[in-house]
Amino acid sequence: MKNILVAGPFAKEDLAELAGSAKLHFLREMGKEDVEALLPSVDCILVHFWPKELTIPMVAKMTRLSFVQSALAGVNHIPFRDLPPDVIISSNAGGYSQEVGEYAWGLLLAAAKRIVKFNAAPEEYGLKSPLELGKEVVVLRGRVLGVMGYGGIGSSVAKVGAAFGMKVRAFSRKVVDDKGVTALSGELGLKEILSESDVVVLALPLTNSTRKMIGEAQLGMMKKDAILVNVARAEIVDQEAVYAHLLRNKSFVYTTDVWWLKDGKEAIPPDLPFFGLENFIGTPHVAGPSAVAHGAPLDNAVDNVLRFARGEALKNVVDRADYV
Amino acid sequence: MKNILVAGPFAKEDLAELAGSAKLHFLREMGKEDVEALLPSVDCILVHFWPKELTIPMVAKMTRLSFVQSALAGVNHIPFRDLPPDVIISSNAGGYSQEVGEYAWGLLLAAAKRIVKFNAAPEEYGLKSPLELGKEVVVLRGRVLGVMGYGGIGSSVAKVGAAFGMKVRAFSRKVVDDKGVTALSGELGLKEILSESDVVVLALPLTNSTRKMIGEAQLGMMKKDAILVNVARAEIVDQEAVYAHLLRNKSFVYTTDVWWLKDGKEAIPPDLPFFGLENFIGTPHVAGPSAVAHGAPLDNAVDNVLRFARGEALKNVVDRADYV
Repeated sequence: MKNILVAGPFAKEDLAELAGSAKLHFLREMGKEDVEALLPSVDCILVHFWPKELTIPMVAKMTRLSFVQSALAGVNHIPFRDLPPDVIISSNAGGYSQEVGEYAWGLLLAAAKRIVKFNAAPEEYGLKSPLELGKEVVVLRGRVLGVMGYGGIGSSVAKVGAAFGMKVRAFSRKVVDDKGVTALSGELGLKEILSESDVVVLALPLTNSTRKMIGEAQLGMMKKDAILVNVARAEIVDQEAVYAHLLRNKSFVYTTDVWWLKDGKEAIPPDLPFFGLENFIGTPHVAGPSAVAHGAPLDNAVDNVLRFARGEALKNVVDRADYV
Repeated sequence: MKNILVAGPFAKEDLAELAGSAKLHFLREMGKEDVEALLPSVDCILVHFWPKELTIPMVAKMTRLSFVQSALAGVNHIPFRDLPPDVIISSNAGGYSQEVGEYAWGLLLAAAKRIVKFNAAPEEYGLKSPLELGKEVVVLRGRVLGVMGYGGIGSSVAKVGAAFGMKVRAFSRKVVDDKGVTALSGELGLKEILSESDVVVLALPLTNSTRKMIGEAQLGMMKKDAILVNVARAEIVDQEAVYAHLLRNKSFVYTTDVWWLKDGKEAIPPDLPFFGLENFIGTPHVAGPSAVAHGAPLDNAVDNVLRFARGEALKNVVDRADYV
């Protein structure tokens, strides 16, 4: 039986099926010495956010390690450079798709329908002309929804966009063949989707090529009154650039559930005073956790570790070149 | 040519086609004497919210009046009791469907995804465990969406619910035959939809039978953590009952775009201090106006007046017994 090191807030009852096909070792329950003794026989790590306790010298002692399964959809928390090149790493792409897609719609509509803004000042808005207020509201039907990254989250976002009668465009390296979705890629495709979309949803992984993908130049390509929704990773967007853009363009909205890292942790609130801006809406990275809380993504990750234990083909294997 | 009295904030360019088939008289541009002189020859009134200037004695002088077209979806603003029984009254049902349906989703998701709450206190929530916060978020997939009133707005709301993978139930007097939608009606149907739905969207007209339809007893039938969304008319919900229910049930959310009338006007904020509650989200009646601002509903109403001018069959004729 393979030795699986379980590193993170996993509940035993959720790993019951896996426990029948592999030997599970729960990092959080083990003493330091027991962990040290186990290292040379670890075959696989099932990890949530990579824990500080799992240091690089410890990884170096895992001479049998051949597979790392992330329970998070993103894998950028994994220390790629310190893992031997033959270690396979799988993301949990798809495991959070529906829940994160739903959350993207929450942010999108809270922005488009000005709900946060109106709810904050009933005395003020109750006195204004409904027609004047109505003009501020963005109607979705017939508008263009640009989905950046067309994996599980992106396609789940697109499906709802179609139900609202929006024109859906997808920016993706992969082939997109969903009915009614226009696929774009490359430098020209990026320019097209940014310039033509009324709403842009970021659903890309954070990789070498997506880091700071949305900077000053790209924001400048977007419509003045566009809504930019981030449920991916904060670092895809340049913090200083988007803050400056929000200051200059009062009808542009940035709304995000994800935050720029500071000392290895997402900083909420961030360094710049986004929360003081009326054209900003932020939530404390709950989209993924809402999926975890309801149990969906773990099933995906555990299923893949089960495949590993049984010697079957692995899913969601990432290209390490994207991260190193 | 028929004489149409245009009463409300209508723009001439929007009535251009109608002007070719009928004689239009703009109440807002007319002197008192001219209006008095016109009354006996008015055939039809195209009205927004029934204006105070159009008094009952004036209506009594409109001996030729045979048709009133409301530009609002609801017709409860029209003085039914003072209009002779042979006057036909048409609502503008359907004219606002998509926009109001979109707005319902904005309120629904702002509540379900706790966006207003989280955005209001980044310092507080940034320190909490993402998993604890994630548990507060309502995931829609697989949950039950109850749509009360299955006209244009209701069916538009249902369509998006299906795209989110929700189980959709509709409460309606009419036959509902949309695929995947379970139809309910009557006293038992009301009990069933209220008790089984995770989210209830009110999309009913305000009539004698829907006024205070949601009172203490009905709120008591609902799930403790349900979300009640009102994009119809405030008076369908009993103000005191829902306020008391929110105080007692912190995980129940009431979110509304519509307000209880006070001195003939919607009062925002209302008499009771809803805006002090964390489980309440309110917006200043902008869903319909967002449709008006984008031009959609007027087309519907004007088209019906055009039918009247041409002697064709009228659409959206209301049953006066529902209102008197």
